[in-house]
Amino acid sequence: MAKPYHVTALGSAIVDVIAAVEDSFLLTHNIAKGVMTLIDEYRAHQLYTAFGSAREVAGGSAANTMAGLASLGARGIFAGKVKEDRLGAAFSASMKDLGVHYTTPAAADGPQTACCLIAVTPDGQRSMSTYLGAAREFTVDDVQESDIAAADILYIEGYLWDAPSAKAASLKAMEIARRSETRIAFTLSDPFLMGRYRDEFLELLPTLDIFFANEDEAKALFEVDEFDDVLQALRPFGNIAALTRSAKGCVIAYGSEVHVIDAVPVAKVVDTTGAGDLFAAGFLHGLAHGQAYADCGRLGALAAAEVISHYGARPETSLKDLAVRAELI
Amino acid sequence: MAKPYHVTALGSAIVDVIAAVEDSFLLTHNIAKGVMTLIDEYRAHQLYTAFGSAREVAGGSAANTMAGLASLGARGIFAGKVKEDRLGAAFSASMKDLGVHYTTPAAADGPQTACCLIAVTPDGQRSMSTYLGAAREFTVDDVQESDIAAADILYIEGYLWDAPSAKAASLKAMEIARRSETRIAFTLSDPFLMGRYRDEFLELLPTLDIFFANEDEAKALFEVDEFDDVLQALRPFGNIAALTRSAKGCVIAYGSEVHVIDAVPVAKVVDTTGAGDLFAAGFLHGLAHGQAYADCGRLGALAAAEVISHYGARPETSLKDLAVRAELI
Repeated sequence: MAKPYHVTALGSAIVDVIAAVEDSFLLTHNIAKGVMTLIDEYRAHQLYTAFGSAREVAGGSAANTMAGLASLGARGIFAGKVKEDRLGAAFSASMKDLGVHYTTPAAADGPQTACCLIAVTPDGQRSMSTYLGAAREFTVDDVQESDIAAADILYIEGYLWDAPSAKAASLKAMEIARRSETRIAFTLSDPFLMGRYRDEFLELLPTLDIFFANEDEAKALFEVDEFDDVLQALRPFGNIAALTRSAKGCVIAYGSEVHVIDAVPVAKVVDTTGAGDLFAAGFLHGLAHGQAYADCGRLGALAAAEVISHYGARPETSLKDLAVRAELI
Repeated sequence: MAKPYHVTALGSAIVDVIAAVEDSFLLTHNIAKGVMTLIDEYRAHQLYTAFGSAREVAGGSAANTMAGLASLGARGIFAGKVKEDRLGAAFSASMKDLGVHYTTPAAADGPQTACCLIAVTPDGQRSMSTYLGAAREFTVDDVQESDIAAADILYIEGYLWDAPSAKAASLKAMEIARRSETRIAFTLSDPFLMGRYRDEFLELLPTLDIFFANEDEAKALFEVDEFDDVLQALRPFGNIAALTRSAKGCVIAYGSEVHVIDAVPVAKVVDTTGAGDLFAAGFLHGLAHGQAYADCGRLGALAAAEVISHYGARPETSLKDLAVRAELI
């Protein structure tokens, strides 16, 4: 019997502040290119001022994935913490607009709603400075058993490991999933997280049904230099691994089944923010609908191609329409 | 007990005539871009004149592979037909210089030694017009049982199917290999061959130990549009498949074992002539020395990278030195 929801996601509830900058801006403001760096409230205020004109849109990695799933027509639940402030209201409204079920109560006090200051350079790369704020306050009490049990797949972002209480909440959600026939999907989120939680992620690996990583993250996890060595290191774990490789497309591996899927060509890469999040959306949509792994990968590639062809980390075109046209739905 | 030779190759004995041309030259002279077209003696003469200044060097797909193997330090035998003429003498001398054992007697009369008029466009693509001449005269009588039995691997180019007597000779060599514990490797050579011999190649497939194809050739063989579908179509055959994908690197598949190997970056692609031939050289060298399949693929990628970084289809640098430096030998 099908469950009422396709995916329940746990993630950081974040509002993105996006500005197009030159490479020199990254140097001047000491921003590491292409990765996510955590910052405190003071530095967030500094950078926000330096950004000047910027666009504010609801973001957060797993939340972007839920936006993608909604655009594909899937039913989803999102759990993540905001504060009762201007950005928190914007985040909640965005979830409601998308039709994503979002019930985590907003915090009445404590730190402000999280924001991610995204500097996009002319090459389309994004460098992120994240102030976690209220997102850190997500706790085990915010995990509703019924939300997890109601979905076919539980999706958790590795970023949550940066907040001890959110990590504890994630582990609780995984426990619930295991006894509820809900499959567990996890994304490594960022190569720098391997420096902080590599051993924990390696321990987690055998317990996952689905595992997302980009090439840099996977290489960092297994401490290898070649992509092929990642592929071989994964074989014993037996989970479905979806490995993204930017312009090289993706590789989907499930035991001895390996699929090499090309990227969907785009006229111009404008902003790679959300590429991995949207890939996950397409892939999870396919999985939740029982599609073949290769087609799940193709759906992921299609969703990623849409989001990198414009600024912002959420789709601007109906992914369902695109997928129907590509005969993937 | 190791055999005295690593590889015995059967191929067209051809001298390459290489000229750098603009794309407009291909249009004016009605040359199909990026593939090999067979031409008769009359058209060969016409094109040769139109080329103006050109470089003449010993070539031929499998012969180039033997040049690569020699550069890597392997021991090889080449079998293929030339005529007793100027180009035939040049071809024989090149084999001798390389240290490749070459004993096929040159024809005293009949058509001239084969030549391949290679037009290289500014994008590094090569378009080949081949006059097969004496190469067509290779027969079963030219196949020496001892040459096949003496090698660990028999390597045959699909191009030979264009000459009925050379095809018969190839099938005889495969028969000898089967009873001599010599592994059989075969390359599809050119996507256009699938139009002429697709069914025959599909019948051959289960009898091969090692199978080389580039992406276009493999798609044409299985009549599929996506690279991943090639990968899945190959699974039941159980041979070692080495699939090259130009800048995307290569994929090596052996049953449930799949390796995704990146291309070796080159500063500038000058001329892709010989890329597939040299990939095969590196791969076969690894195989003959019992290396892991992934390392065979890396050796192939290394040899291909060398040959595309200059004009001509044979290495200009010691591949052995390059491989030692890359810690692949």
